Amino acid sequence: MRIDANTKILIVGLGLIGGSYAWALSEKGYEVGGIDINQESVEYALQKGWITHGRTTDDGEYIGQFDLIISALYPHTFIEWIKKHQQYIKKNALLTDTTGVKRCFIYDLQALLRDDLEFIGAHPMAGREKSGIEFADKDIFKSANYIVTPTEKNTEAAIETCSQIGHILGFRCVTTLSPEKHDEMIGFLSQLTHCIAVSLMTCRESDSFSEYTGDSFRDLTRIAKINEVMWTELFLLNKDDLVAQMECFETQFKKLKEYIMNGNAEEMREMMRNSTKQREKFDIKKDD
Amino acid sequence: MRIDANTKILIVGLGLIGGSYAWALSEKGYEVGGIDINQESVEYALQKGWITHGRTTDDGEYIGQFDLIISALYPHTFIEWIKKHQQYIKKNALLTDTTGVKRCFIYDLQALLRDDLEFIGAHPMAGREKSGIEFADKDIFKSANYIVTPTEKNTEAAIETCSQIGHILGFRCVTTLSPEKHDEMIGFLSQLTHCIAVSLMTCRESDSFSEYTGDSFRDLTRIAKINEVMWTELFLLNKDDLVAQMECFETQFKKLKEYIMNGNAEEMREMMRNSTKQREKFDIKKDD
Repeated sequence: MRIDANTKILIVGLGLIGGSYAWALSEKGYEVGGIDINQESVEYALQKGWITHGRTTDDGEYIGQFDLIISALYPHTFIEWIKKHQQYIKKNALLTDTTGVKRCFIYDLQALLRDDLEFIGAHPMAGREKSGIEFADKDIFKSANYIVTPTEKNTEAAIETCSQIGHILGFRCVTTLSPEKHDEMIGFLSQLTHCIAVSLMTCRESDSFSEYTGDSFRDLTRIAKINEVMWTELFLLNKDDLVAQMECFETQFKKLKEYIMNGNAEEMREMMRNSTKQREKFDIKKDD
Repeated sequence: MRIDANTKILIVGLGLIGGSYAWALSEKGYEVGGIDINQESVEYALQKGWITHGRTTDDGEYIGQFDLIISALYPHTFIEWIKKHQQYIKKNALLTDTTGVKRCFIYDLQALLRDDLEFIGAHPMAGREKSGIEFADKDIFKSANYIVTPTEKNTEAAIETCSQIGHILGFRCVTTLSPEKHDEMIGFLSQLTHCIAVSLMTCRESDSFSEYTGDSFRDLTRIAKINEVMWTELFLLNKDDLVAQMECFETQFKKLKEYIMNGNAEEMREMMRNSTKQREKFDIKKDD
């Protein structure tokens, strides 16, 4: 399928991300429906005009009308939802998701799916320090990356349609990675950074420090204000990759500490020159 | 002394910080002179109108005309400069500095100073990822903290005058800390964060990652583009405090890693709740 003016889209899970998707898609003129167990979230989305209809309960007839289903649930909640409701889903519908870990559920999900349905993973690398639909914001996608994570089971058509969703939502950059590469990359770029921020923020009582904070501490701890339920689940679902990345960081940090303890000035300067060179690459990519 | 319209101010060292000081002070109408070993830096400041006169060489008569001398040199370079030139300094002049470490040289400097001169330490917690007078910017002080670090040798008058400088420069917040408290605090809030950023940035080759970077990695590595000469000197001068802070962070990071490895979800959530609570305190302080 390709998305066109008649495509009916269902968002399952109206939180921060689900709400932002609904907002962005409805604004582009698509008919969007929503399901959430929380009545207030459904009403909020209806009142904002982000969905034209919604449900809080299992309603097979309702689910059956959509061509595209986007899950904004946690991975294992989505698997349970599929097990219970896939019987109602429209023939040949396409399914996708928004979660930040892939390997741990994509293959299981594809294995249990009806033959006429297709699921393709996608990760919108956007978020905020708050959760809940009341913090939804369609503009968080503008400067962000959207990664499609196909497996061997996916068709070219589905990969294209899923990329199309990323473009419709307004992502700066839409790319494709295998679930394995995705999880490794996210372990390093996103989960490790959150582990660092949380550790830094909790390693001292901050009362005596907060009035002297400069930009560097603020920057490093911005993400220390964290949704503990979601991130605990994401960390545990990507445990092996994350622990490997944490150990890689620990090794490098310990090396620097030993240079400092031993007064190895030239080694320290070399490491900082390398750090500067690596960081400049990121700036170049950003300006592209 | 109090600073008034007739106070003549000398900046020793016209780099990023010295240049920004000269710019801010000259704009407020003060007569500012400058000394730097680099002819181009002196000419740059003259051409911009940030200093009304400058020198590259030892000129006792020139040095002797200033009421207030501000060092923007590295700590040990400043000590050498004082040993060589204090004979020329005007009677009863006040001296201050701009360096990010204090204990390691303040007491030595005060001990070797002429009896009629007074030195009081100050740390402008501002900077940029670039160095050199061509990146000077008087506006970097606006949202930053300025910390006066008096010892028992300092007079109340000098503490007041030094605080006055922070206000004239336009700092958001001017406070006072002992050199010991200052170094401990800076080890945690500034040096540790730079160690983390450098370690994170160098723990993998980034080519394969940079196109997937989100805000969190960008935020955590902004300061990984680093002046390796200055920071190596600062780290080594504050070695004991910095290593203690690094070990404090390592302990906390390892604790989180073990929670993840062992699947201790509740301990992880508790740590994240604490992290969120601590970070919120910083936001409140910022908004004050």
